[in-house]
Amino acid sequence: MSHSISNEKEITTRAVINPQQLLEHWQGHRRLTRRVIEAFPEKELFQYSIGGMRPFSELAMEMIRIAGPGIRGAATGEWKGAGELDLSFESPSPETKEGILRLWDLVTEEINNVWPQIPPQRFQETDVAFGQYEQAVYETIFYFIDNEIHHRGQGYVYLRSLAIEPPPFWER
Amino acid sequence: MSHSISNEKEITTRAVINPQQLLEHWQGHRRLTRRVIEAFPEKELFQYSIGGMRPFSELAMEMIRIAGPGIRGAATGEWKGAGELDLSFESPSPETKEGILRLWDLVTEEINNVWPQIPPQRFQETDVAFGQYEQAVYETIFYFIDNEIHHRGQGYVYLRSLAIEPPPFWER
Repeated sequence: MSHSISNEKEITTRAVINPQQLLEHWQGHRRLTRRVIEAFPEKELFQYSIGGMRPFSELAMEMIRIAGPGIRGAATGEWKGAGELDLSFESPSPETKEGILRLWDLVTEEINNVWPQIPPQRFQETDVAFGQYEQAVYETIFYFIDNEIHHRGQGYVYLRSLAIEPPPFWER
Repeated sequence: MSHSISNEKEITTRAVINPQQLLEHWQGHRRLTRRVIEAFPEKELFQYSIGGMRPFSELAMEMIRIAGPGIRGAATGEWKGAGELDLSFESPSPETKEGILRLWDLVTEEINNVWPQIPPQRFQETDVAFGQYEQAVYETIFYFIDNEIHHRGQGYVYLRSLAIEPPPFWER
């Protein structure tokens, strides 16, 4: 028993990042992205864009449609949905900021609920994310986070060009 | 001895991501960012911006000035410089794309050279990055990567608004 505890300690100490820390890292980013959604005026959230890109509402919906079904897939290998939420790419997007924030918060809960069910060895397993992207599960989860940072950075440019100060990048 | 090997295996299997994988993850992002720098026309790299933000040359120089000294600091706790490279925030920026790419490549080598010197337990140690930001070393390294993704995403908007197709986000 004490041997097993000692192993656990070694693992915790030597890992670059443990599952609980990665969850907190992601949720920190999600809190910031939520503030970026809130920073957009209602109309500009749905209509404003630069260079033919999508408005920030659609970028946020992409994050929602990836993260909700994605966390279930990462945990279970089933890439079909997010529990009772219909978050398929064919499902209609909300037409209000409030509607998007409501989905955002449901996905935040979904991630918190599903995360503890991810078996520790799962992060290093190979799986075909969304039936299309074959890679280690940690790579898939990092992709979710990186894609969110990428598109949120684009939202910062939209806001700046609207003369709106975005929330500080380092505040999570 | 076999006991020790068995421990190693356990650690490798159970960690979310190991140091070698995090290095590859970062360098994959850096390869993409390099392509984004290359995608800018010479003049627009230094002069074009949106909403009063910095041109992409300055965003790239921020990444260089963080990553070069940052990887040494992460490895050693000395946050003073990047070997023989003068990458302080007071050092002059190159005035050509070629000059920026040359620094970029030097920092890529610096990261590859310094990374193996990071003691495995170092990622979970607390340190005051750049004498200012007290957090675990893994958080500091993630911040370097996330800040790069954030600003590179902004470069995508600059390129799109210049009617230039950016490199695919998923190609590393």
